[in-house]
Amino acid sequence: MRILHSIPREDGFRMPAEYEEHEGCIIIWPERADSWQYGAVAARRAFVQVAVAIAESEKVTVCAGEAQYDTAREMLPPQIRVVEMSSNDSWARDYMPTFVVNEEGERRGIDWYFNAWGGLVDGLYFPWDKDNKMARKFCDMMDTDVYDARDFVLEGGSIHVDGEGTAMVTEACLLSAGRNPFLTKEQITEKLKAYLNVDKVIWLPRGIYQDETNEHVDNICAFTAPGEVVLAWTDNEEDPQYELSLACLKVLNQERDARGRRIKVHKLPLPAPVYVDDDTCEGLAHMDMEPTRTPGERLAASYVNFYISNGAVVMPGFGDVKDAEAKKILEELFPTRKVVQVMARDILIGGGNIHCITQQIPAKGKTKRKAEGINA
Amino acid sequence: MRILHSIPREDGFRMPAEYEEHEGCIIIWPERADSWQYGAVAARRAFVQVAVAIAESEKVTVCAGEAQYDTAREMLPPQIRVVEMSSNDSWARDYMPTFVVNEEGERRGIDWYFNAWGGLVDGLYFPWDKDNKMARKFCDMMDTDVYDARDFVLEGGSIHVDGEGTAMVTEACLLSAGRNPFLTKEQITEKLKAYLNVDKVIWLPRGIYQDETNEHVDNICAFTAPGEVVLAWTDNEEDPQYELSLACLKVLNQERDARGRRIKVHKLPLPAPVYVDDDTCEGLAHMDMEPTRTPGERLAASYVNFYISNGAVVMPGFGDVKDAEAKKILEELFPTRKVVQVMARDILIGGGNIHCITQQIPAKGKTKRKAEGINA
Repeated sequence: MRILHSIPREDGFRMPAEYEEHEGCIIIWPERADSWQYGAVAARRAFVQVAVAIAESEKVTVCAGEAQYDTAREMLPPQIRVVEMSSNDSWARDYMPTFVVNEEGERRGIDWYFNAWGGLVDGLYFPWDKDNKMARKFCDMMDTDVYDARDFVLEGGSIHVDGEGTAMVTEACLLSAGRNPFLTKEQITEKLKAYLNVDKVIWLPRGIYQDETNEHVDNICAFTAPGEVVLAWTDNEEDPQYELSLACLKVLNQERDARGRRIKVHKLPLPAPVYVDDDTCEGLAHMDMEPTRTPGERLAASYVNFYISNGAVVMPGFGDVKDAEAKKILEELFPTRKVVQVMARDILIGGGNIHCITQQIPAKGKTKRKAEGINA
Repeated sequence: MRILHSIPREDGFRMPAEYEEHEGCIIIWPERADSWQYGAVAARRAFVQVAVAIAESEKVTVCAGEAQYDTAREMLPPQIRVVEMSSNDSWARDYMPTFVVNEEGERRGIDWYFNAWGGLVDGLYFPWDKDNKMARKFCDMMDTDVYDARDFVLEGGSIHVDGEGTAMVTEACLLSAGRNPFLTKEQITEKLKAYLNVDKVIWLPRGIYQDETNEHVDNICAFTAPGEVVLAWTDNEEDPQYELSLACLKVLNQERDARGRRIKVHKLPLPAPVYVDDDTCEGLAHMDMEPTRTPGERLAASYVNFYISNGAVVMPGFGDVKDAEAKKILEELFPTRKVVQVMARDILIGGGNIHCITQQIPAKGKTKRKAEGINA
């Protein structure tokens, strides 16, 4: 594995959209006792369901620390690969590599700096050293060269791309004080353009209410095709989420993507608010002498937090009346894929959802970008 | 990764000889403080030299535990892959998979039971649980199916094959009380025939004097081609090794291989005895309240403990007058390969040598066995 100090855009590499073809998917086994209640047993069952659904159409690799390796191997079916790799927690989206590919069939990783969603300003745990090493470790295991982008704090869940020159992020996250406070919005835009090889960055103002990641884009809005997004939505004006989603909608209605298209917005309903109960809190270990959850706390539940595999869209369900409606919308938007709904409350308790616990490995040599002058 | 309960011979898989083409080589990073003196620093330098010499002609993967991963990554050049994998010690030969291939270009691993060279009878450390998991972990990482041979205690260093139907082992090791005491010599022979897919097992009586592995074959005798071996040899009749080597020579002179050939024996001189000094003992941690080495103890030094890579023979040197002579003999026996001598005293202190710390991954689809009725 070579450590590269050049820039993907200059090298002709770009980040493909999630709906382009994958070689596989990375997941990290849940273990952390202050993230996952009652020994992470319920979380593991949910992770296994996600992994199995993805593995129907692409290779899944689950990374487990030494202590949990045997349990992971036992709980996962044989077609899923388990490798030993230590971590602080289980958010493959946020600290596994962002992969970029070129038109010659080569693939490389990007190793951003990870500081647990805000470092010592408002990060969620300390230390984060094991997580922060995983991108390089995984690239080394794949024998894949990696871009050193460690001067820039970024999580994979805070970016989405359409595969045709457009990225989408939130101001709430990327301009937060705990990430890159010495960079301006314009400098961050240039960084994203250079590393993801995009021509346009759409800045949504906000994300999901109470989202501990400083409101990652992947919980509120996702590309379903070039020029089309789903936006987490509520019609309840009393819900604090209403203003946040509305602010995003206004931006999306004004914006054009890198190709000059207006953006078609599909509203994806939110489930009724999901709250932490007493029993969950009892099942969670404390961190730094404090509980990590409080009874009655609202969790950042959203159907937008889905993973697009080669053959499926694996989306969360919450046992809510909106589950079926949200599923139907995604079925219409992804007519060639099977939509699989996994009951995800036990993932949500950890602070994220299905998109957050997965990271796609794009296929090599099959991701030719259309040539119409996007990078002219 | 599927766990297979069938038999390689019945499935058409066989173990290739070490001099057949490789895809790569596995090494485990040294760490254990009671095996490797002074924080394993000198051992690491020697391991790096071995890895670099092998990496000139095949891919090398070094497995390092979490705590040592960064050091391994820093000390090894970028063309060598480093993966996180926990172990009890660093003997890839003995507990990484024995790989078998078929003529359709498929490869599988064999997972023997490893009990630290004799278990609770006369094993060298306890516990050995991490080592014993490595074969499966490595196969899983490679996405390679693995034969479950855990009802049989065997180390990779206790077997050699010629690639044409012959295996070679020592009675001292394979009939030892700490391995498979309930199996007869005939039953063990049948087991080896079935799993390695050979027709003949040559039983040498002994190995190298004081070899802690119960005298592994790979320290005393190795195939250099079908029908040809090198045998560790001394002309000094006062040396306790003399009787051991002579006993092996007598067997080799009487035996024929699976193809009916007489075996051509090339004597490879032994270096002058290598003894443990006071300084080394001071640098070693104790185990079970006892020192692991005693000043004046003789180590099992032998030039036979070399690794055959695609382009080289990587052999030990001891700073002995015989170093050059042994190198010259191997150069004559391997005319298409470069013979690289690595000063190996710091590996020998751990109890083995270059062959012991390596395990080849045979190439797929390039190992067609000649068809003349060997398995008829």
